[in-house]
Formats: sequence, structure tokens, C-alpha cells
Amino acid sequence: MKIARFEYQDQLAYGILDEDKQEFVRLMGDPLYAGFETLDERIKVEDARLLAPVIPRSKVVAFGRNYLEHAREMGNEVPEEPLMFLKPNTSIIGPGHPIRLPKQSERVEHEVELAVVIGSVARNVPEADAHQVIFGYTVANDVTARDLQKQDGQWSRAKGFDSFCPLGPYIETEFDPSSGGIGAKVNGEVRQVGDLNQLERTIGALIAYASSVFTLLPGDVLLTGTPAGVGPLEDGDEITCAIEGIGNLTNPVVAD
Amino acid sequence: MKIARFEYQDQLAYGILDEDKQEFVRLMGDPLYAGFETLDERIKVEDARLLAPVIPRSKVVAFGRNYLEHAREMGNEVPEEPLMFLKPNTSIIGPGHPIRLPKQSERVEHEVELAVVIGSVARNVPEADAHQVIFGYTVANDVTARDLQKQDGQWSRAKGFDSFCPLGPYIETEFDPSSGGIGAKVNGEVRQVGDLNQLERTIGALIAYASSVFTLLPGDVLLTGTPAGVGPLEDGDEITCAIEGIGNLTNPVVAD
Repeated sequence: MKIARFEYQDQLAYGILDEDKQEFVRLMGDPLYAGFETLDERIKVEDARLLAPVIPRSKVVAFGRNYLEHAREMGNEVPEEPLMFLKPNTSIIGPGHPIRLPKQSERVEHEVELAVVIGSVARNVPEADAHQVIFGYTVANDVTARDLQKQDGQWSRAKGFDSFCPLGPYIETEFDPSSGGIGAKVNGEVRQVGDLNQLERTIGALIAYASSVFTLLPGDVLLTGTPAGVGPLEDGDEITCAIEGIGNLTNPVVAD
Repeated sequence: MKIARFEYQDQLAYGILDEDKQEFVRLMGDPLYAGFETLDERIKVEDARLLAPVIPRSKVVAFGRNYLEHAREMGNEVPEEPLMFLKPNTSIIGPGHPIRLPKQSERVEHEVELAVVIGSVARNVPEADAHQVIFGYTVANDVTARDLQKQDGQWSRAKGFDSFCPLGPYIETEFDPSSGGIGAKVNGEVRQVGDLNQLERTIGALIAYASSVFTLLPGDVLLTGTPAGVGPLEDGDEITCAIEGIGNLTNPVVAD
């Protein structure tokens, strides 16, 4: 089931995508808290302005170097412990919203990632039980100011600017993350290509690790690392991040 | 004015402290959003269970090495750019709530800090205007797993564990942060001593820097660095962080 969060007639709404009819079946409320009860109302996809499918009340927890080929292209190896960092919820934007290149950086790069949306309060979850706390999956772009990332030591600035975490288009609640194509195109040109079967640490292992440190709350988002092929974004570019079975997340890029 | 957030008769409540009578004058709602309108109700301080005075919906933004003597005790200097990192809102606890020592660390340390509570949406705020976006000030303990901090590179784990951000006891809305005693005692023994006039970067400079990266939201908290004297916390300890003019933030320490 693909769940969308969108603006419709100046209201915030949630819906289940009917792919054949290209309509949303409107939900009573945020399905993370209100479940999947539907209203007797259908909205054309073209009449809805998609928003990020979730804004966490707590954390975007991201993992670095979780694809060997990407770790190597950056001159690193896959780390012995997961490399975990935080992005603020103010960095999240939805499909179609602009990624703004901050004045402080001369090199902003795209990183397509599979995003896991947490569905329940989770603390010390064993790897084997991790599926029980997952609400669904979406596509993320872990936008990174590469020059500031190298310069700062801590990555909070380089990965935390407003608009540096596009999410969308939908949350797929029935996705199998064990394999499937993941990639990114800039202005139609292929930049990143990978397969989810290349993840060095499984989704379960990442949830187990994160939840051994902090309590995960419903709506928290985990970013699971990016495949090889990261590269720069320039003013005027259009970037599409895609995961087979979830959809395409397209954002324009503008200088701030 | 000292504002408290507390549990009273199984309800979440907010109040203004009447120091002479040791009572709270109950507020209509969260003063960050509802203002300072009061109800005709007084609650004895001893009948209220204090909570963290604020839980941000977005960010705890923290700054490292902002007191020269502390930077030096850690073998560092004050950095040229502010050293900024994020703590998750799930790390926040209130006065009296236990700091839990995680199994993953063998060295957890206290860091008393002045915390700034943001009062309005703030983006690209000039240093001179920063006072306009401040709601008030409270005391924080930026609890840190020192071994993991050194090992991990990114500090999200070392500083992000549940219970690693005690806040309280009150938000003082009329505080002058340009000087005043700041310190920490463990089991009554003085560990950290400093003065807010030793801050290398002013509150205004920190707000200007943070708000040039991310939009600050009402309720976001900035931690402004710790003075010299950081040291370990052990199972059974009691730590009191104090800032003159705001109050004492005391927490027991327990092994997880």
C-alpha cells in the first residue's frame, strides 16, 4: 500500500494511492497514529500537492558507508561499527520542493537512500524483531555539503541545512527491502546505480543498533546509506532519486 | 520569571514560580505557544513533579569547546568555526529523573551548560537581533560517553543516549547570560566551576551561526558549551548542575 501526505484545497490530507485510477483514497488522519480507516472521498493525484510523507517528531537517524562501493569511492572502507549521525527534521522537504544550495558550501552532493519509517516506540529491538517496528519505506536524498563535511569533523552542518533531506513520494507499507534497484539521475543522466542487496548491514541490524542507543518514536526515519556514484548538484539541476517498487523523488535545485 | 513544566494530579501543567511562597501560579497552557495568561490556581512546589521545562519538536543544537579552559583540558583549542552537533529530543529528562549509564560505555561524563530556549521561528538571525528569538534560559547537562565520543568520530551515539540531556529546573525568561556562576557538583563535591563571562562565543553568535544552517523552531534548545572540570559519573552518584539566577538541576545516576 502506498501512503501519501499532501495538500489539497488548503488542507493537510493523507491518502492511499490507487495506482490504476491515479487517485488517492482519503484517510481519516495520519495513518501512523490513526490507522488506515478511509473516508468516502477520492482525490485525483494531479489535484494533490505532495508533501514529505512524514515529518518525525524526534529523529532522522542516518548511516554512512553502508555500501562498499560508495565507501571506497570516498576513500574509506565499511566501518566496523555502524557510522551513525543525525539530521534535523527541519531538513526535510517533499517531492518537487527545491533543494537550496547554501552560500557556505561550494560542493553540495546528492545521496539516494532507502528510508525506513518507524511505526512504534522502539527500544533495544533485536535484529530479528525489527520488522515489527517498521511502518514502511520511502525514498530519501541525504543531501550533503561535501566540503563542509570534510572541514567540520561533525556532520551536523554539512548534512543538516534546510532542504537537505527530500523524502517521498510515498511510504510503501509492503516493501521487501532485501533487493531491488536504487539510483539517482541528474537532469536525466544516470549518476547513482545500486541494488538494495548491496547493503552491508541489514535494515534489522541498523534498527537494532539505533534502538540500543535511543528510543525510536513513531515517525522517526532511518536513512540506510547510499550506493556509489554520488556527485555535485548545481543551480538549475533537477535530481530524481528512485527505488524500484516505491517510486521517484524529484526535486529542483536552486542557489540560495 | 521562572517557568516550570510539571505533572500535577496526573496532568501536564505549566506554572510561574512564586519564590517567596514556593508555589506555582498555573498557566493556561504551554507559554511557548499560549503566552503567559494565568489561571486562578496555585500549586505548592512540593506537590508538583517537575519535568524537563521543554521538549523540542525539532532540535537540541549543541556547541563544543566554547570555554577555553575546557577545550584545553581535553587537549584542544577553541575551534575557528563553532563546533556544532545535534542531540535527539529523546535524550531529554527532567530534574530528579535518572541518568542511565549505558552498557556500551565505560566512561560517562557530566558537562554542565547554559541552555537557550528558542521562542520563535528563526532563520538567518543577525547576532545583534538574536535576543528577539530567545524565550529564556535553563540549565543543561550534556552527558557524554567519553570513550564512544573518541571512538566513533560522529558524536551522535556518545551524546545521544536516552537520558543524556537533563534540563531544568526552570526556564528563566529574564536572565542576563553575560556573566554569572556555572558549575557542577557530584555527591556534594565541586567538579566544574566557571563563569558565563568565559564563553568564547556569545549566545548571539551561536544563534546567528545555527540559524544560518537550519531554521530554529519555538522550543528548540541550544547548549552553549561546558566549563572546565568534566569528570566521570558512576552508578549511585547524584549530580547537581547549577547556574546562578536559574537554579539547580539534580539527577541520580544509575547503571542501565
